[in-house]
Amino acid sequence: MIVPTSLTSQHTVVPLPFAAGSLDGISERMISSHHENNYGGAVKNLNRVEQELAQTTPDTPPLVVAALRERELTFRNSKTLHEAYFANLGGDGRRSGAIEAALAQAYGTTARWEQHMRATGMGLGGGSGWAIVALELDTGALRTVWSGHHTQGLATSLPLLVMDMYEHSYQMDFGAGVARYIDAFFANVNWDEVNRRLERAQRLSATLRDA
Amino acid sequence: MIVPTSLTSQHTVVPLPFAAGSLDGISERMISSHHENNYGGAVKNLNRVEQELAQTTPDTPPLVVAALRERELTFRNSKTLHEAYFANLGGDGRRSGAIEAALAQAYGTTARWEQHMRATGMGLGGGSGWAIVALELDTGALRTVWSGHHTQGLATSLPLLVMDMYEHSYQMDFGAGVARYIDAFFANVNWDEVNRRLERAQRLSATLRDA
Amino acid sequence: MIVPTSLTSQHTVVPLPFAAGSLDGISERMISSHHENNYGGAVKNLNRVEQELAQTTPDTPPLVVAALRERELTFRNSKTLHEAYFANLGGDGRRSGAIEAALAQAYGTTARWEQHMRATGMGLGGGSGWAIVALELDTGALRTVWSGHHTQGLATSLPLLVMDMYEHSYQMDFGAGVARYIDAFFANVNWDEVNRRLERAQRLSATLRDA
Amino acid sequence: MIVPTSLTSQHTVVPLPFAAGSLDGISERMISSHHENNYGGAVKNLNRVEQELAQTTPDTPPLVVAALRERELTFRNSKTLHEAYFANLGGDGRRSGAIEAALAQAYGTTARWEQHMRATGMGLGGGSGWAIVALELDTGALRTVWSGHHTQGLATSLPLLVMDMYEHSYQMDFGAGVARYIDAFFANVNWDEVNRRLERAQRLSATLRDA
Repeated sequence: MIVPTSLTSQHTVVPLPFAAGSLDGISERMISSHHENNYGGAVKNLNRVEQELAQTTPDTPPLVVAALRERELTFRNSKTLHEAYFANLGGDGRRSGAIEAALAQAYGTTARWEQHMRATGMGLGGGSGWAIVALELDTGALRTVWSGHHTQGLATSLPLLVMDMYEHSYQMDFGAGVARYIDAFFANVNWDEVNRRLERAQRLSATLRDA
Repeated sequence: MIVPTSLTSQHTVVPLPFAAGSLDGISERMISSHHENNYGGAVKNLNRVEQELAQTTPDTPPLVVAALRERELTFRNSKTLHEAYFANLGGDGRRSGAIEAALAQAYGTTARWEQHMRATGMGLGGGSGWAIVALELDTGALRTVWSGHHTQGLATSLPLLVMDMYEHSYQMDFGAGVARYIDAFFANVNWDEVNRRLERAQRLSATLRDA
Repeated sequence: MIVPTSLTSQHTVVPLPFAAGSLDGISERMISSHHENNYGGAVKNLNRVEQELAQTTPDTPPLVVAALRERELTFRNSKTLHEAYFANLGGDGRRSGAIEAALAQAYGTTARWEQHMRATGMGLGGGSGWAIVALELDTGALRTVWSGHHTQGLATSLPLLVMDMYEHSYQMDFGAGVARYIDAFFANVNWDEVNRRLERAQRLSATLRDA
Repeated sequence: MIVPTSLTSQHTVVPLPFAAGSLDGISERMISSHHENNYGGAVKNLNRVEQELAQTTPDTPPLVVAALRERELTFRNSKTLHEAYFANLGGDGRRSGAIEAALAQAYGTTARWEQHMRATGMGLGGGSGWAIVALELDTGALRTVWSGHHTQGLATSLPLLVMDMYEHSYQMDFGAGVARYIDAFFANVNWDEVNRRLERAQRLSATLRDA
C-alpha cells in the first residue's frame, strides 16, 4: 500500500548545532527561545496544517484550501530558513574560503556586498523578514535577497547565508537596536558552513545548467 | 578588473519555445501578449531595478533599499517563473513517465494530486499568483505550492510544473472562467519537459542530501 | 434573543448603477463580467468565510483562525472597493466641483495629482491592486493610495475615487494596455459622485477632529 | 501661493498619553522603546518617503513610484495605528459603557467577542500585524480585524481598540509568551477611550449612511 508522503509527514525539530550559551553577544535566553518557540512553533504548526490539508476533499471551498496553503507555505519556509539560520551561526565570524572570491566577483568587493547585506537587513528593521545570500541555481549567480515574510524568497535558489530579521531574533537582547544585532550576527557567522553550502550549490547549479 | 556580476546583468527575453498559435484552446493573441508584455515587461523592469540598486550607496536610506529590493524580487521571480511556465506548455497534455509514479507516491493517487493542484489554482482565481509542483531539494519531497504573488515561493525548491494564475493568463480568452483556463492549461502541458525537470531535480536533491 | 450581527450577515450584490453597455471605451462584456464574477464572487465568498468563522470555537487552531481572517479581509474589502469603483463610473469624465480645488490644494495643481494617480496605477500594471484617492479622516488630508491587494489600504480613510487595477478590470478589452485602460477609466469617471463623497468625508473628518 | 499639503507634511511624534512606567505588567523600558523607536521611526520614515515622492516626475519609472508608495502606506498606517494603540492603553482594563452592549450585540456575548479577539491575536504570534476592533463606517458593523502587516486593514473603518501584534510589542518583556502579552494588554486597556471612539464612530457612520 502506498503511503502518500506529501500528505503525512511528521516533521521534527533539529537541535541547535552549537551550545545555546556559546554565542558572542547573543544571549542563551534569546537563542533558546528563538529555537524552541519560533522555530519549534513553526514545526508544530506545519504538522498541523498538513493534517488539515490532508483532510480536504473536492467539496472543500477553494477559499479554505487557499487559506491553508498560504499557512503551509509560511510554516514550511519558516522551518527551512530557521534551520539554515541556526546552522550558519556558531562560528567566529572570520570570513575566509571560496565565498570571499565569490562575493568579490559578484559585488566588486566584499565590502560592497556587506554594505548591500546590511542595508537589506536594516530596511527590514522593526518588522519581519529575512536577508539572505542565495545562489540562484538556474543562473549560478549570487544574490542578496530581501524577504519581508516567511512566504517570500528567490525562486530556484539555495540559501548560503541566512540572517533572520523577525524581531524575535533581536528584541530580547537588543530592543530596537537592529544595527547592533546585525553586528552580533556577523560576529557569529560560521563561514565554514557557508563555504560548504557554496561548494554544494555551485556543483548543483553546474549540473542543472549542463543538463 | 572585476566586473561585479550581481550588479550589472543584462537580462534578455527567451523566445516562446513553441509556435504562439499552436496551443489547444489558448489563443495566439493571449499567449503572445502574455509573453511579450507580462514576461517581457518583467525582464525590462528587472534590468531597470538592478541599475537602481547598483547606484545605491551607504547613504541611501534603508527604506529606499528595501523598496527596491522588494521590486527586484518581484521581477526576478516573475522572469524565472514565466520562463518555466512557457517551457512546460506546448505539449499534448498526456501525463506519462516518472512523474506519474512520483505524484502517486506523494499523494496516494495522481487523481488526488490533480485535485490538490486544481483546488490551489481555483483558490487563486480572480487575483494573482502561481500554482506550482516543486521538488523541495533539501527533503526530496514533491510539493504543490500556492503562491499569491511573484515574490512568494517554496524555499530550496525547483519548479517542475508551473501554472500561472495571474489574470493575464486567462482573462483575454476565458474572462473569469478560471476552471476552463485550468482545463486548457492541463490540455497543453508538456509532460516530457516536466519529466526532464523531475529527473534533474531528483539528481540534485540526492547530491545535496548526500553531501 | 440576541442575533450576533457580526457573525451572521448575509451580504447581497448591489446592481451596477449604470447600464452595462453605456460606458465609453469599456465594453459591456467586460464590465458585466467584472460585476458578476469578480465582485459577485467576492460577495459569495464573504458570506462563506463568515460562516466558517462563526463556527470556530476556542479549540480551533489559531492558524486556522488566522487563515480564515485573512480571507475575510480579502473578500470584505473586495466587496467594499468594488462597490465604490462601480459607483464612481458612469459619468462623463469632466472634472468639476469642489474636488478640483481640493486636489489643487493637496498637490499644487490638479495636473500634478493626475500624474501621481496615473503613476500609481501604472506601477500596479500586470498585477493586482487598487489606486485610490482617499480622504484620511483623522487628518483631513487627501491621499493618493497604492494598494497591491484587496487587504491593503489607508487606515481611517474613506475612498473618494477608486480605480481597480486588478487585471480583470482591463485584460479583456485592453490586454496588457494599462495606459489605455487608465485613459478609459478617466473618461468615465462620475465626478458628481466623487464630489458627493468628498463633501461627506470632509464633514465626517471635521466632526472627528472637533470631538 | 499654494503649498501642496499632500506632498510637504512634516509629521511629528505624539507623546505617550500616560506615564511610561505606569502600565500594569508592561515595562517602562519596553513601552518607551516601542514609542521612541518603532513609532518614532515610522514618523521619521514617513517624512522621508514623502520627500522622495514629492521629487518624482513624469520620468520616474513606475516601478520606483510603486516601491515608494508601498513604503508610504507602511509608514503612514504604522503611525496612525501606533497612535491609536498607545491612546487605548493606560486604563484599568475594566470593560464598561456602550462598548459592552455593542460587542454583545455583534458577537452574541462579550465573551464570544473576546475569544475572537484573542484567537486573532494568537494567530499573529511570532510574526507581525495588528488585531483591531473597528467600526465599519459604511455598514455600522463592529468587526474584529486581522492585519498581518501595517499596510493591511479594513476599508472605510475607524479603529476602536488596537492591539499591536508586532513582536516589538512583547518580545522584550514576554519573549515568545504571546498569550501573556495579550493578558497584559487587556489589563491595561483604557475602555473610556474605546467608548469615546465608539460614540464618535457611530455618529460618523450614521451621518454617512443617512447622506
